[in-house]
Amino acid sequence: MTALPTAPVPGAILEAALYAPDLDAAEAFYGGLLGLPRLMRAGDRHVFYRVGATILLIFNPAATAEPPAEDALPVPPHGARGPGHVCFAATEAEITAIRTRLVAAAVEIDSDFHWPNGARSLYVRDPAGNSVEFAEPRLWAS
Amino acid sequence: MTALPTAPVPGAILEAALYAPDLDAAEAFYGGLLGLPRLMRAGDRHVFYRVGATILLIFNPAATAEPPAEDALPVPPHGARGPGHVCFAATEAEITAIRTRLVAAAVEIDSDFHWPNGARSLYVRDPAGNSVEFAEPRLWAS
Repeated sequence: MTALPTAPVPGAILEAALYAPDLDAAEAFYGGLLGLPRLMRAGDRHVFYRVGATILLIFNPAATAEPPAEDALPVPPHGARGPGHVCFAATEAEITAIRTRLVAAAVEIDSDFHWPNGARSLYVRDPAGNSVEFAEPRLWAS
Repeated sequence: MTALPTAPVPGAILEAALYAPDLDAAEAFYGGLLGLPRLMRAGDRHVFYRVGATILLIFNPAATAEPPAEDALPVPPHGARGPGHVCFAATEAEITAIRTRLVAAAVEIDSDFHWPNGARSLYVRDPAGNSVEFAEPRLWAS
């Protein structure tokens, strides 16, 4: 077997994606409740948010599963169905404040516990059913 | 309408998730070809990678869709099907080197183009069919 040419190892995630059929409901959650700054909304196709150095992409899978138009940029189709997952970094105090706000907005708490290493994780569902977590970064400390 | 209590806006994504039914094939791609450092593998349930400050979680949706065992931590079930999306940050030169390595490994290039603002994006598929992008961070420069 011939050795493959080497290449740099990716050092950051630039975009994370979730899928949601109702982008208005997604906006009410990610923009309204979480307060994320919106980067763009493209009709019923997608809404993007800035989360620090990473962009959170929320796609309507019915739209993104379609191949691009002939005169459009050749962005490959994709589109998952069913509950996905994302986790936001937050301190313990931030998780407490976020929980209070979500509960006041009648968002059900799916789970709220401490991992064996002591890090806290709070889980809720977005309107599309995605499992949205808020966790202390020390969960993954090396 | 009563005003909701305020809460800090999440400032970073700690975990991004993809789904893949064949975790050995996922390891060959994310670990072997991309060279990401593996954080953990749990049988046929998941394999996690460190990508800078973010953890890339790759789940077998058949396993994660099951509710947790009574004696396990109450991690909520999730599990999407169909092609998802993730994007790694890379410079133009890094994208070129990654493309060369992927092509040498017989990975098909889905797309490789420059956006209107000049940023380059390379797209391939992981073995599960997820759309994996490598893009210059200036794509999202504000």
